[in-house]
Amino acid sequence: MDVIYMDNNATTKIAPEVLDAMMPYLTDYYGNASSMHNFGGMVGRQIVEAREKVAALINADPGEIIFTSCGTESDSTAVHAAIRSNPSKKHIITTRVEHPAIKNLYEYLAKNGYRVTWVPVDSEGVLDLDFLYDHLSEDTAIVSIMWANNESGVIFPIDEIAEKLASRKIVFHSDAVQAVGKLPVDVKKTGLNMMSISGHKLHAPKGVGALYVKKGTKFSPFMIGGHQERNRRGGTENSASIIGMGKACELVGSHIEEIDTRVRSMRDRLEDGLLKNVPNALLNGKKDARLPNTTNISFEYIEGEAILLMMDQLGICASSGSACTSGSLEPSHVLRAMGVPFTAAHGSIRFSLSTYNTEKEVDFVVENLPPIIERLRNMSPFWKEGACKVQ
Amino acid sequence: MDVIYMDNNATTKIAPEVLDAMMPYLTDYYGNASSMHNFGGMVGRQIVEAREKVAALINADPGEIIFTSCGTESDSTAVHAAIRSNPSKKHIITTRVEHPAIKNLYEYLAKNGYRVTWVPVDSEGVLDLDFLYDHLSEDTAIVSIMWANNESGVIFPIDEIAEKLASRKIVFHSDAVQAVGKLPVDVKKTGLNMMSISGHKLHAPKGVGALYVKKGTKFSPFMIGGHQERNRRGGTENSASIIGMGKACELVGSHIEEIDTRVRSMRDRLEDGLLKNVPNALLNGKKDARLPNTTNISFEYIEGEAILLMMDQLGICASSGSACTSGSLEPSHVLRAMGVPFTAAHGSIRFSLSTYNTEKEVDFVVENLPPIIERLRNMSPFWKEGACKVQ
Repeated sequence: MDVIYMDNNATTKIAPEVLDAMMPYLTDYYGNASSMHNFGGMVGRQIVEAREKVAALINADPGEIIFTSCGTESDSTAVHAAIRSNPSKKHIITTRVEHPAIKNLYEYLAKNGYRVTWVPVDSEGVLDLDFLYDHLSEDTAIVSIMWANNESGVIFPIDEIAEKLASRKIVFHSDAVQAVGKLPVDVKKTGLNMMSISGHKLHAPKGVGALYVKKGTKFSPFMIGGHQERNRRGGTENSASIIGMGKACELVGSHIEEIDTRVRSMRDRLEDGLLKNVPNALLNGKKDARLPNTTNISFEYIEGEAILLMMDQLGICASSGSACTSGSLEPSHVLRAMGVPFTAAHGSIRFSLSTYNTEKEVDFVVENLPPIIERLRNMSPFWKEGACKVQ
Repeated sequence: MDVIYMDNNATTKIAPEVLDAMMPYLTDYYGNASSMHNFGGMVGRQIVEAREKVAALINADPGEIIFTSCGTESDSTAVHAAIRSNPSKKHIITTRVEHPAIKNLYEYLAKNGYRVTWVPVDSEGVLDLDFLYDHLSEDTAIVSIMWANNESGVIFPIDEIAEKLASRKIVFHSDAVQAVGKLPVDVKKTGLNMMSISGHKLHAPKGVGALYVKKGTKFSPFMIGGHQERNRRGGTENSASIIGMGKACELVGSHIEEIDTRVRSMRDRLEDGLLKNVPNALLNGKKDARLPNTTNISFEYIEGEAILLMMDQLGICASSGSACTSGSLEPSHVLRAMGVPFTAAHGSIRFSLSTYNTEKEVDFVVENLPPIIERLRNMSPFWKEGACKVQ
C-alpha cells in the first residue's frame, strides 16, 4: 500500500533493522526468559542487552528501566507507585493538555479521593509555570508533566521544573512518550523521578513500553504478579518486542541529529507551504518550542475529519486531534485548553513526520492539500468566497 | 537450536501460521487501528476479526472480549473491576494454588483492607469445595478459581462452582490461562463472569492476552487511558499480536481433539515410562483430572534445578516449579499446598507437551532421564543405594 505517512505521533513503522532483531525470537528462540533451561536463559540475556540499550538512549542505568506493555501502562505504573508510596498525600498536579493516559487516570483519581490541579497553557500551548509552582503543597504526592505535547508538539521545560521540585519531597513524573526518540533526553541532567516511554512511537513494535524509575525512588508495582522485572512488573517478558525496543532505541539514538536537521527542515517546508498557500490557516503551538517533526494547523470553518478523508483518497495519512481521541466528535481538549476557537479547533490537522519521509512527499502535500481545503470550504455553510459568514 | 521442548505451560512456540498472519502488520501495515485514515482503519478491521476468533474459541460474543497485554493483566483487570464495582464488599475467595498473578495480587489486597480466604487442596491437588462454599458470604466481592493448575495440571470443577454461585451476587472469575487452548471451554454453558486468557500459552506471541467479561458484568478499567477496547483498556492496540492471537485461537480450536488424544497419549507414555523406570518417583496431581499435556513428577532426594541443568545439556526443556517462580529457591507453593514433602517437592519436574512434540522425543526423555536421576542421587547426601538415609 503506497501511502504518504505523516502520522508518526500516532504510531510509527517498525524499522526493518528492528524487525530483523526481533525475528529470531518470534521463530526459533521462543523460550521463556525466566526459565531455568538455556533455551529460555539465552532469551533472558538478550533482554539484559535490550535494557542496556534503552537505558543508554536516556543516559539511565539499566536497573532503572522497567519494561511495560505500552506508554499508558508506564504512566499508570508511575502514578500508582507515587500514590501508593505516599498514601497520606492526596494532591496531584498535572497539565490541562496531557495525553488521555494521564488525563483520564487523574480524572478517575479526582473522583476517588484526590484533589487534582490542572495547570493551564496559553494560546501558544506554553505552560503556566507560576501557576504550577503556586500550587505545590506539602500534600502534593506527584507532579506529572508531559515532556512534549502529542498534538501541538509544544515542549515543556522539564529541566527547569525538575530543578524547582528538587528540594521538595514530591515525585516528579513525565510522560515523555513523544519526546524520547525525537529529542535528546538525559535523565542524569534532569531530576525526574519517573519517565514514560513508548516503543511504537520510536519505530519499535506496538505493545511494548518502558518506565524509567530513578534509583532511590519509592516503588510499588502496578502489574502485580510473577517475579519478572525484579518484582516490579509481573507477566511473562515480551521478549521479541523488548529486544526490538532495544534495537529501536539504539537506532533512534543515532537519528536524533537527523530529526533535528533534515526532519525539522521538511516539517518547516510543509508548514510554511501550507500556511502560505491556504488562507485562514493558523498554526497551533509556539513556533520555536516544538518537536521538530510536528506541525498542527487549523483550517478554519471546515471539519478536520472531512480533510482527513479527502487526503486519505490521495494516500496521505495525518491526524485530527490525537489518534487516541479520534472516534469522538468532541474537539481536542488540547486545542480547547489553548483557547483555539471552536471553528478552528474542529478543522485542525496534525502532521507528524519521521526520518522515513521525503521532501518529495512534503511537496506533494503542499501541492495537493490547498485545493482540498478550497473544495471543502466551498461546500461549507460557514464559509463564502474566502470570508467568514458567521462572526 | 535443536531442543526437545516440553515446557509448554511456561510458554509456547508461535505457530508458523500465526506468524504468517502477523507479518503484514509488523511490516507494511503499521497504521494505528484507531486512526481515521484507511491505512489505520484496515488494521482496525483485522482486529474486529481477531476478536471474533477469540470469542468463537470460548463461545463468547465478540463484545465480551477485551484484549490485554498478558494473562497477568487480564487477572488484574478482572479483580480490579470486581472490587471497584462492589466497593462495600471486602472479602475475596481464591485457592492456595493460584498462579502468582492472582496469588501475589490477593496477598497485596490482604494487606490493604481485604479479607482473603484461601481454599485448600488435598494431596492430589483437588480443591476442597465444601470449604469454598462454607466461606461464601454477603461480603464476598469476588471468587477467583483457576481453571487448571499450571504446575500440577489439575483441573478444577468450574462449571459446578459457577452453578453454586449463580444465585448469589458474587463475581466469579477464573484464570483460565492454562485451560483455554488445551480443553474445550464454553462460557455460555458456564456461569463465569470473567475469565483470563493468555496468548503465548496457546501459540500466539508473548505480550498479548484477553479477558472475557460476560455481558452485564459491572466493569471498571484497570488500564485507564484512551478510548481503545470501548473504553475498557487504554493503550494503542497491539495490532500484530492481537491478529496473531485471533489466528492462534482459530488454530487451537481445531487442535483440541488432537490434544485430548495424541498429546494425551504422549503425556501418558512419558509419565508411565518415568514412573516405571525411576524408583522413588511420585506423580503430583490427581491422575484422571488433569490437563492432557501436563505431568508433574517428584524425584525424591534430589534437586529439581540439578535435574533441569543436566536435561538441558541434552536439549530437554522442562520446568521445576512454575517458570514464574523460578529464580527463587523456595519450593513451589502449589506442591506445598498439596502437602508434598520437602524432599519430594524440591525434586519435582513439570513436563508440558504440545502438538509439536513427537513420540520420538518422549522416548528420548524416557530413556535418558533415568540415568540422570541415578547419577544425581549417587551424589546426593540424602540418598544411598536406592534408599533414603534420612527418615
